[in-house]
Amino acid sequence: MSSSDHLPVQIPDGFAPLGTSGTRLLEIERAKASFSPAELREYIYGNEYLERQSRILPIVENEPAFDKSQIHYMSRGDKYRHGLRKDKRMVQLTREHGWSAEDVKVAEELVDMPAAFGLHNSMFLKTLRSQSNDEQQELFTKPAENFEIIGCYAQTELGHGSNVQGLETTATYRPETKSFIINTPGMSSMKWWIGGLGRTADHAVVMAQLYTPDGKDGKLVKRGPFPFVVPLRDRKTRELLPGRTVMDIGPKAGYPMTDNGTAIFNNVEIPHINFLAKFANVDPESGRFTAPKHDKVAYGTMTFIRANIVQQARMILARSATVAIRYCAVRRQFADRDAPQTDDGRKPSESQVLNYLLVQARIFPPLVQAFALHYTGRAMMTAYNASQAALEEGDFSLLADVHASSSGLKSLSTIMASNAIEECRRACGGHGYSLSGGLASLYADYLPQVTWEGDSYMISQQTGRYLFKTMRSVLADRNSPANKANDTAQYITRYVDNPNAKAPFKYAGDLSDPQIFVDAFAHRAAYLTATALRKRDIEKRTWNDLLIDIFRMSTAHSQFILVNNFAQAIMHDEELASKPAVHRIMTTCFELFACYTMDTEASEFLSSGYLQPKQHELLRSRTHALLAELRPQAVPLVDAWGCPDYLLNSALGRADGNVYPALVRFAQGEPLNETRFNVAIDEDELEVGKEQGVRAWTKL
Amino acid sequence: MSSSDHLPVQIPDGFAPLGTSGTRLLEIERAKASFSPAELREYIYGNEYLERQSRILPIVENEPAFDKSQIHYMSRGDKYRHGLRKDKRMVQLTREHGWSAEDVKVAEELVDMPAAFGLHNSMFLKTLRSQSNDEQQELFTKPAENFEIIGCYAQTELGHGSNVQGLETTATYRPETKSFIINTPGMSSMKWWIGGLGRTADHAVVMAQLYTPDGKDGKLVKRGPFPFVVPLRDRKTRELLPGRTVMDIGPKAGYPMTDNGTAIFNNVEIPHINFLAKFANVDPESGRFTAPKHDKVAYGTMTFIRANIVQQARMILARSATVAIRYCAVRRQFADRDAPQTDDGRKPSESQVLNYLLVQARIFPPLVQAFALHYTGRAMMTAYNASQAALEEGDFSLLADVHASSSGLKSLSTIMASNAIEECRRACGGHGYSLSGGLASLYADYLPQVTWEGDSYMISQQTGRYLFKTMRSVLADRNSPANKANDTAQYITRYVDNPNAKAPFKYAGDLSDPQIFVDAFAHRAAYLTATALRKRDIEKRTWNDLLIDIFRMSTAHSQFILVNNFAQAIMHDEELASKPAVHRIMTTCFELFACYTMDTEASEFLSSGYLQPKQHELLRSRTHALLAELRPQAVPLVDAWGCPDYLLNSALGRADGNVYPALVRFAQGEPLNETRFNVAIDEDELEVGKEQGVRAWTKL
Repeated sequence: MSSSDHLPVQIPDGFAPLGTSGTRLLEIERAKASFSPAELREYIYGNEYLERQSRILPIVENEPAFDKSQIHYMSRGDKYRHGLRKDKRMVQLTREHGWSAEDVKVAEELVDMPAAFGLHNSMFLKTLRSQSNDEQQELFTKPAENFEIIGCYAQTELGHGSNVQGLETTATYRPETKSFIINTPGMSSMKWWIGGLGRTADHAVVMAQLYTPDGKDGKLVKRGPFPFVVPLRDRKTRELLPGRTVMDIGPKAGYPMTDNGTAIFNNVEIPHINFLAKFANVDPESGRFTAPKHDKVAYGTMTFIRANIVQQARMILARSATVAIRYCAVRRQFADRDAPQTDDGRKPSESQVLNYLLVQARIFPPLVQAFALHYTGRAMMTAYNASQAALEEGDFSLLADVHASSSGLKSLSTIMASNAIEECRRACGGHGYSLSGGLASLYADYLPQVTWEGDSYMISQQTGRYLFKTMRSVLADRNSPANKANDTAQYITRYVDNPNAKAPFKYAGDLSDPQIFVDAFAHRAAYLTATALRKRDIEKRTWNDLLIDIFRMSTAHSQFILVNNFAQAIMHDEELASKPAVHRIMTTCFELFACYTMDTEASEFLSSGYLQPKQHELLRSRTHALLAELRPQAVPLVDAWGCPDYLLNSALGRADGNVYPALVRFAQGEPLNETRFNVAIDEDELEVGKEQGVRAWTKL
Repeated sequence: MSSSDHLPVQIPDGFAPLGTSGTRLLEIERAKASFSPAELREYIYGNEYLERQSRILPIVENEPAFDKSQIHYMSRGDKYRHGLRKDKRMVQLTREHGWSAEDVKVAEELVDMPAAFGLHNSMFLKTLRSQSNDEQQELFTKPAENFEIIGCYAQTELGHGSNVQGLETTATYRPETKSFIINTPGMSSMKWWIGGLGRTADHAVVMAQLYTPDGKDGKLVKRGPFPFVVPLRDRKTRELLPGRTVMDIGPKAGYPMTDNGTAIFNNVEIPHINFLAKFANVDPESGRFTAPKHDKVAYGTMTFIRANIVQQARMILARSATVAIRYCAVRRQFADRDAPQTDDGRKPSESQVLNYLLVQARIFPPLVQAFALHYTGRAMMTAYNASQAALEEGDFSLLADVHASSSGLKSLSTIMASNAIEECRRACGGHGYSLSGGLASLYADYLPQVTWEGDSYMISQQTGRYLFKTMRSVLADRNSPANKANDTAQYITRYVDNPNAKAPFKYAGDLSDPQIFVDAFAHRAAYLTATALRKRDIEKRTWNDLLIDIFRMSTAHSQFILVNNFAQAIMHDEELASKPAVHRIMTTCFELFACYTMDTEASEFLSSGYLQPKQHELLRSRTHALLAELRPQAVPLVDAWGCPDYLLNSALGRADGNVYPALVRFAQGEPLNETRFNVAIDEDELEVGKEQGVRAWTKL
């Protein structure tokens, strides 16, 4: 019998799938590699990251508090508990091993269980650090860094998410007592969705509309939203302090370990020092308000967060492609329609699902999109650093372009990644629906990325505004140096100079020039901008009338950036050029990314007259040919991304290909299997007893 | 205080959202109706259905066993128990009220909790009824109908889903004992995914490869997959019988109440009578096998099931649109950019999210798609009945067209509906992510429809094969009467006669002729077929090479059917014509459906040369204009679908618009709120106590 004696149902020893094993099938795939996956991996991540990961992985994957094998059987409450335990243990391990912030980041990525302390570690600490004066650093930041207080960041309200200026919670200064009164005026003002607020946090940074007395007649005047530190619970007894109503908001599609919470403040009084006062000021005596100087770094912070979102989306795409590609290499279904009979007259054996072109068309795009996001994420970090350096020199010229592009890229990359998870899950057929596959829960947990940090549909307006502004400026004076300062202004200028340009390719071979795609995507983004700008400035259409056009412009601009950064690497990245085999396969990935994306969006290339119908047909054929070309390299390519089994947590995506035994073990773990149920219609009792241990087989 | 005294956290009496209430906002929307929602509802469903629903709804929504309010807080095990209780109670109520099969269907639709008996009621009973001889009807069907035995339908295996011919489970006939030996030869042969098998069923219909002795030398010969009745458990003690290993396969993305299970049979012996023998025969004495006559009704059954899938997809679209449209009418965020200040100088108030064009572009298409599927589902039922009637006259001519179209429509409608749920969920912003919204769980539960009953990507090959065949036949003799027999042959003939046709519209007003769209979609489907057929028959490309083209053909053909059936109703449905206000709004819905779909697929219309770039621009403008035109009718239109609150089970989609109080109640129900947690890093204990009842507010 199997050695897993605690499992309620056991299966026979040596019971294996019929036919070629998954392990063998993956070995055969790996033998086809035209490049070294290890070399590509090093090129992607760099040695420093890989060394860090290989140091930390064995610690976290062997830590009982970080075990992932039981999570899918747990109730939501037990998932919260598991997450809280994990968060405590992470702090302990950080102290034991003396981990740096980078180490912890890698550990959290691998453990991949956002939980109770998630917002304490990010927004709570970040806000305290950036918005506190020296006294507040001592009073709040240090205890928070030592986990003596646990906090959350309370901005969103039941009635207000995106529109921060519309927040309703009030903080009214009372000079007599030198205190602020925090109040929740109505149900729509309840703080809502706040990570860690539900059961965990004892403190909150609360964003509230500041009211201070006006100089002349002492009338209260609204000053806009500012951050306040509000104690919530007694740090020891964990009882709520008076005036606070706090609870978890209940289960969500994902994120079960995080206690998103709500709070009502009923005239809660906090001392003057709890107003985070680095940028604005309320005079303690008079209550006189001094407005903050413009927070120039805010745009920078957003860009940094968004660059991280793009880098994270890259890993989501790589994970999804890894699971789907490995599983589809192990799964076999139907013989090829055109396959000949074998020599001895038997039917041909079943084909790997990965061989089907329609499957390739669904799961190879996420793989090449991961590489595209990789180069753009890298470029965003470089641009962020350059713009920060320029800022310190008092130069604001880089900021607008970097910020506008980061909005569109946040939008595009999160929509792209979430769609890819689901496409890969569906490509895994029936087994993709089991939580053991790892993609269904990844999807559920990833979805908030589409909505938070700027809703990915709404946020496109920031990019649109910038494209309008740039084109207006080019139209006003196309020779101004400002209009040569960055890629956006340059491609818009090129379009304005030659709006009737045509795609110059005629043969499939022409498509091997990356510049073809850079020019095409640039022309399309500029064409959409020109068309929409005409509606705005000449037809005087309302902004709302143009929201669809603006979303399309933002998408087109962002796709241009992805194509451009990927193309630049293919053409000019010296490290890549020095690795010919890696360069060769990256070139195929680039071509597939560019052709696939262009085909998907073909109507806009056709409508502008840039692309002719015959060229579109050529493009589609080339896309199909590239899928077939990539086929033998698919498993080596996902191996190159090097997602550890511990991270994937997927029966389908295992590196060793032992898919079916892993599915069986997942079934064996289901707690329902311990109980026998009563199906008699007229009996209320639902259970009739416990299963009697091991069943069948050896007993026959 | 609130009267809900059992809730761990209470909120103050009279605590309401600020600003105009959701109820008032929906009242204002309803006052804008240009037609009678009740009249449209009657037109869609017919009186008989509505009377049935209104008779059954009060019974099921007041039945404690069918309560939906606690489900999202339950563990998976408790969800299974809730489902089992619901299934037993449904049988009791059916007996108490003397419900017909139609009544039960309506009750199950409203309760919407597929659970333990789901496959007993469908495939188990259906197979017994259609495949049993008279003796077997007495032995198996009658006890099953009385719920004396509970069954499941065991076809899928761990290694085989779509490819039924590849099943590995064996049933070997042994003339000596007049019995079959059922055996699971390896892990890949384990029955898997079988609904109700995990914990509930005591019997299974097992599809197994039949082996019988060959006449000459008695050598065992494989005869293909056939159904066998296999007892699994003792009906009273519920203990597994010897030789059976059975368990639940563990949690899935959705369907928590259903115990999908697995089984291993280790040489399980069943008597000859357990072979369901209506169509094939194994002689008890000799074991001589007689092959079944071709089961001519099988295609019919599939068509019937798929027509039901299309009708169900229609309701999924209507539900999703109902939730998103009502919520977006209640939710307000940001003031319109172009809105003027109010007369007294205040900022304009926030706009309903439903006013934003980009939101309309995401949530109105599902609404009009629901109407499109409605007409096509109705047409499929008519076609099914006609083809069954013809079959009984020995006329097979209708079968192929009806079956091929039903494959493509199954594929298109399930992909359309699943994507629409998620798009509507995202359009609900942050609150769409809460399970209280109802769409996240609807999505998770709907997803299997995309995969089962023929994987919606793979199944398109059936439609493709038929389109190839039809075009070959037209090319061979375009005057043959067979090539005028149905819409498909007719539009292919039209295309062959005039492959270079052009879209005839020039002005927006031209688009008000439905025939414009019928012709356009027909031309595109034929164009794609012609292009792919050239590759197959002239270039001799492999079938696999063409799978993407074939999927596109199938989609195009199915979209033609949707457009055509909707257009026919607008042009020729007399009942519709007799209700001018309803006809008017349906015409707008049709135009939006046709324009939106054509814009989405524009690249293929452009590539064929049928559509010119200028026409595409016109089409896009018209689509945007139609969204704005539909805006004031959106709430009345979803009201017309009449999805009861009990069915929606959504805090966001409530008919009364009281969204925010419902979100708060959902939070109050979360069991985690009863416990206080210990966050001290160095203490292992996770809990510190119970919350002390009512908090804050009145105590200050």
